[in-house]
Order: sequence, then C-alpha cells, then structure tokens
Amino acid sequence: MSFIKVDANCDFSYQNLPYGIFSTSDSVQHRIGVAIGDYVLDVSQVAHLFNGPCMKDKQDVLRQSTLNQFMSLGHLFWKETRARLQELLSESCPTLRDDKELRAKAIIDRSKCKMHLPAQIGDYTDFYSSRQHATNVGIMFRGKENALMPNWLHLPVGYHGRASSVVVSGTPVRRPVGQMRPDDTKPPVFGPCKLLDFELEMAFFVGPGNELGQHIPVEKAHEHIFGMVVMNDWSARDIQKWEYVPLGPFTAKNFATSISPWVVTMEALMPFVLKGEEQNPKPFKYLQHEDPYMFNINLEVKLKPGDIDMEKTISRSNFKYMYWSMKQQLAHHTITGCNARPGDLLASGTISGESKDSFGSLLEITWRGSEPILFDSEGKLKRVFLQDGDTITMKGFCQGDGYRVGFGECTGTVLPALNIE
Amino acid sequence: MSFIKVDANCDFSYQNLPYGIFSTSDSVQHRIGVAIGDYVLDVSQVAHLFNGPCMKDKQDVLRQSTLNQFMSLGHLFWKETRARLQELLSESCPTLRDDKELRAKAIIDRSKCKMHLPAQIGDYTDFYSSRQHATNVGIMFRGKENALMPNWLHLPVGYHGRASSVVVSGTPVRRPVGQMRPDDTKPPVFGPCKLLDFELEMAFFVGPGNELGQHIPVEKAHEHIFGMVVMNDWSARDIQKWEYVPLGPFTAKNFATSISPWVVTMEALMPFVLKGEEQNPKPFKYLQHEDPYMFNINLEVKLKPGDIDMEKTISRSNFKYMYWSMKQQLAHHTITGCNARPGDLLASGTISGESKDSFGSLLEITWRGSEPILFDSEGKLKRVFLQDGDTITMKGFCQGDGYRVGFGECTGTVLPALNIE
Repeated sequence: MSFIKVDANCDFSYQNLPYGIFSTSDSVQHRIGVAIGDYVLDVSQVAHLFNGPCMKDKQDVLRQSTLNQFMSLGHLFWKETRARLQELLSESCPTLRDDKELRAKAIIDRSKCKMHLPAQIGDYTDFYSSRQHATNVGIMFRGKENALMPNWLHLPVGYHGRASSVVVSGTPVRRPVGQMRPDDTKPPVFGPCKLLDFELEMAFFVGPGNELGQHIPVEKAHEHIFGMVVMNDWSARDIQKWEYVPLGPFTAKNFATSISPWVVTMEALMPFVLKGEEQNPKPFKYLQHEDPYMFNINLEVKLKPGDIDMEKTISRSNFKYMYWSMKQQLAHHTITGCNARPGDLLASGTISGESKDSFGSLLEITWRGSEPILFDSEGKLKRVFLQDGDTITMKGFCQGDGYRVGFGECTGTVLPALNIE
Repeated sequence: MSFIKVDANCDFSYQNLPYGIFSTSDSVQHRIGVAIGDYVLDVSQVAHLFNGPCMKDKQDVLRQSTLNQFMSLGHLFWKETRARLQELLSESCPTLRDDKELRAKAIIDRSKCKMHLPAQIGDYTDFYSSRQHATNVGIMFRGKENALMPNWLHLPVGYHGRASSVVVSGTPVRRPVGQMRPDDTKPPVFGPCKLLDFELEMAFFVGPGNELGQHIPVEKAHEHIFGMVVMNDWSARDIQKWEYVPLGPFTAKNFATSISPWVVTMEALMPFVLKGEEQNPKPFKYLQHEDPYMFNINLEVKLKPGDIDMEKTISRSNFKYMYWSMKQQLAHHTITGCNARPGDLLASGTISGESKDSFGSLLEITWRGSEPILFDSEGKLKRVFLQDGDTITMKGFCQGDGYRVGFGECTGTVLPALNIE
C-alpha cells in the first residue's frame, strides 16, 4: 500500500498507477504524471530516482512532454519503472515519504492538473471488433441474413482514422456540418448533422513498434502494447451513411475522437485478463494465440442533456465483449509490413454487449431512432441522437479485491454547429 | 535566368525551384534544399540572406530538418522566400554568384544529395477524384450501369490513409503478405499478395491549416496549399478486395506509399492552371469556386521488369484529368471541422485519362489482368501485375516555353515477400 491514501472506489489505486501528461497553472510545461488517489506524482521531479539497470541511462525520457519516448523503450523498461514507482509510493519506503521538500514539489492535487494528450499520435486506427456491434449495425443496414460481412470472422476489420482530431477528455465537440441524404428519393442536402452519435470504445497505445516491411508476430504483440484508454469515437450517422461507400467513413468521423487522459498500463490490467470467445472459424496462424487476452473492464456511458441538471446511465458494457483481441489487431495491422510507431493509437471499435442496455452507441440503443431514451416518466425529455449542449461521459474500471484499476473519465459536450451556407 | 545553367528538358528550372529535404555524406544533417538544374541550393547555408519583412524574423525556419514550419507560415512568407530565391539565383545578382566561399558551401551537386521525406506527415488522406478511374473500377466491380456510386458527383470521396508508411522515392517496397479470397466459393487464403499494383497519383502538402471545429472555406483553400509531389499509392488488389467491405481499404494500402522528394510550389504551378470540367450536378456552395484550379501536368509511368534491362512507358496521363480540384478536396475535408495541420498530405486518387494508354493502374491497363502488357513482340515477357524485382518509376512535368517545371522521379522496386506462415 501507499503512504498516499486511496479510497476503495477511486480509479487510481496503488495497483493502477496510470501515466498521463499534465500541466498546472504554476507550471505550464507539459510533463509526465502518475495518478494515485486524489494526487498526481510529477515524474519529472523524481526522474533522478529511477536508477535501475534499464532506466538509469534513460531518465531524460521521464522528463519529456509526451509519453512517446517512454512508450518506445519497451516492456522491460516499463516493468522496471512501474516497480520503482510502486516502491517510491509505498508506505515502507522513506525516499519520497519522508522528503518534505520533494513531496511538496512532486505530489500535486489532481484537481489542479490540466490534462493533455498522453502522446503525439502518429496514426490512429479504428477496428470494428465487437461482434454484437457489427451484427447490430449489419441488421439495421443489410437485414438479419447478411448482418456480418463474409470477412468479419476471418480478420479484424478496421480502417485508418484521423490522428489530428484525437482530443483529450473535456474538449468540447462541435456538431459537424456536411452532406447528407436523408431521403434516398431526393437529392442530398447540406447542413448541420442531425444524427450525432457517440461510440463507446477503448484504445491502446503502441510501444516500440516495427520497421516498415517487417511485422509484429502475434506472439510478440503484447510487448508492443503499452496501455489503454477509454475512447469516444463521435460519429455523424447521416453524413456517414451518404459518404462511406466505397472507401469507408471519412468526414463523418474526423471532427473529433475523445480519449481519457490516463493511460492504464497492460501490467496493471493483466490481473483482469480473461479468455475470449472461441473463434470459429479458427483464424489463420498469424492471428492465433492461446493465452487469454480479453479484459474484464466495466464500462458505462452517461448522457447529461444540455437542458436539465441530471445525467442518466444509458449503457453498461464491458471490454470483454470483444471478438478480436488487441494482439490480433496489432498482428493483423502489421502483417502486410505496415510500420507501427510508438504512440500510435489503435481502437477497438464500438463495444456492444448482447442486451440493449449494453449497446455502445445511440444508433443501437435507440435502434436507429425508433426507441427514444426517456429522461422522465412522461417522455417529455427524450433523446434519440445528441442535441447541442448534451454531455457524454464514459468511464471504465476493473474491480479488484478492495481496489479499482480505473480509467477516469472520457467526457465531451456538444457545441452548436458553425453557420455555413 | 540563373547563373546556374539549366537544360531546357531539366525538371528543375529557374522557374521551378522546388523544396526538398536532403543530406550528404559530408553532412548527414537533414536540411532544406532547393533544386536547380543539376544542383541543390543548401538553404540552411543562405538562410541569413532572407531578410525581407516577412522572413527576417523567421530565418530559423529555413534551418529546420523538415519543411513543416515553413509550410505553417503561409502564402505571404512563401511568396517572399521564392522571390528572394529567384533573386539570389539570378545571373544579375552578385550576392551568391560572386561569393566563391558561399557558393562552395551552399551549391551542391544534386547527384551527391540523399533525399528524405519533405515533411513530417501528421495525416495522409487519399481521395478518389478522377472520374475515369472511378468509372473504370466501378465497371469492373459493379457493371456499367452502377459504375459511379450515387455520392461520387456530389462530393470528393476520400478516406484516411496511413501516414507512417509514406516513404520517399527510391525506398524499396516489400510485397505484402495477407489475407485474400481469390475464389468466392472457397474459404480465404493467406500468403504473399499476387495482384500487386501501383496507382499513379499526385498529392499536395497543407500549409497553415485550421483549428479543430473550424473549416477552410473553398475561397481560402489556395492559401493552405503549399505544393505538390508525384505519388505512387502501391496497392494489393487481392487483399483489398477481401478486406475493404464495409470500412474501406486498410492493410491493402498501408505497406507503402511513395512520393517524389521535391515539392513543387503552387506559385511555380500557377502558369499551368486550367479550367476543369463543368461539374454537373452543380456542387453545394462550400465546394464552388469559379477560378480555374486544374493543372496541366504531364505524367508518365514506366515499368522496368526485374528480369531484363529495359523499361517501358506503360501510361501517359495528365493531372488535368481530375474532376474535383484540390481546393474542393481541402474544403470538403475540413467542412465537418476536421483540423488540417502543416505537412498533412492529401492525394488525388488514381489519375486516369480516357484511353487505355492513360490509365493510372495495372488493374485498369490490363483490365483486371485480362490484357497483359507485352515487353516483346512474341509475348514471352509480359506483366499483368507486378513481379518481385520490378521497378515502377513515375514522372511529372509542366512544359513551359523553353523550360520545364517538373517533379523529378517517384520510383520504387518490389522486394520479395517475407516468409510468414
């Protein structure tokens, strides 16, 4: 246990120790922090204490303004750093505990920390790896018989997303303007998106990565997965429907993708690993791994309408509802020789469970708008898609015995559209 | 004219002055160069001479190892820099011409320069803006009646590509390995791509760009377009066909995208501007511009089979065969509020003219492999798709009166696939 007290329901336990990039009003320099309880350890202030065999020559990496360099070092360095962090924060270690001056500099109220993107994201990829989500969308757009496309059970379908518009939790999201064709018998129209949606996802950051023309074998993939965040892949359903054939979603997705600021490491998550669903048909060898690599991460989505002061939990899901594992995603992504770089972000795709209350998007929860979410018994306040001023907040946590390994929040509020003719 | 003599057929005339990033064996530092004739002006050596009202406080930008900062400055800075370059290189200006010591440092044999990527590419986007190409592919995959999708004439269809695997001309390209389903009645197979193709494209680099939640109006788009390169968007047709539904091309395109190293500025290209095809239906206002913005850029593709010492021109095309202009592409890309950043790369999509000898891919030239390219009269040496050892070289130039504004080469040789089970 740590000399810093942590509430049993707090996401940032001594067992968690997620990394993030923060600044304070006193010091606007972006720097690496580790969340614990209501505090943040300013790693730049204690970098000199990381003197293990791996990190002693790499202390400068801990003084960077992004996590990219740290991510690039690889799992041996991550492991040593985590062990040292746990030691420095433990109640039995005097180094930090008893150094009043250092504590005053290095341990900061979390409420005073402004969070930034954890890494410079070179490329962002979005998968489509929840079977229930793919099935739901398939039923809506192609009918029950053709719900899953023929390739879906053979490979983790995915596409390249927009890296520039990945933003940190709390960033407002402007309702996009664009082309739609709400009525197939009439010409397309131009204006603000009317079917603005969220997508409940999780995403992982790549570690060392691979050279162009090489690949990351599935059995090595874990060593290239640094840690995870909760993600909201905001989506303009009406724009998407009109534009996505034949090259996939483009402007319907590139206006904002929000992520939670604290990167929870795979080491902190390994106690919550689960075996995934049996895959049938058996995938090709480059996608096979025997060890479990699904994770029991509780997820929830809350919607706060802009016009009243209440919020409602509209989905409770779990990251375990994935068909393709992160190892399989990374192995597939690089099988053609594509180079993955430290700080690349790979997302799960919308995570939907089997029941309606575990679906990961409004498209599914309201079944294309036909079943509104009611905020009062009379149905006066309801939602099918997002209105201006609405706030979506996603949370995720693993429940340990008396502690949590959690992700904090991924939140964003919808701003009105620009006025464009 | 310049005191440096330039052959009339040389791509890098005094009227051109493209920017690139180079290094030499003497000095491995990546730095900005300007190509002229058989030489490169090392801009880092003459940065102190850029003392106009815009650039005098920005000389450091000319000493960077990428063009991103210079791209971010905007068109007034670009214009002043170009004017000063033309002055310094003119036969009438003694500053550089008569300073032997400076000339020895700053003017380098082009053959001694190793070229690198011109910018750190934050995001790479690929459009699909040649009507003939979209029609050709549409006919092959959906038949003549449904060749163009309903959205194609209303918006510049595009998708997000992979930035990490954009490489500079000369980089070898490894044949990708992946999943394919050559026979729809049988299960998919795994192995090296058998239908490896090129795509003849051009691409532009973004200048200052826009903030997230804002957009670049079409009438301002030109100010955000820095310059252009020739691009080969290598494509694994068999992998693409199996994976691309419903989210678009992914691993079939992410193994390599080659670009020519010299960025030809829009100022150098403006004398070759042309009016585009009349657009019918008339696009929405956010896509309308009256001024011409197509460019008369001659393009050619040569294929050198790995097994013999000859190369054959297999396509002669022109950038004017575009339906959507670069201004329209940038306006559309940002209409939803997507932020474009300096150094982002936006590509045209495959450029195909109306006749078979102007098609921009083997898929089209050999019409899905049914009409092989013959390298001898007996048809002993032929190609339908690329073999290991084959080299594709693309060139582009505008023909002025007694001079050229050209792009140099975009070349790449196919390496054999990795041996993966």
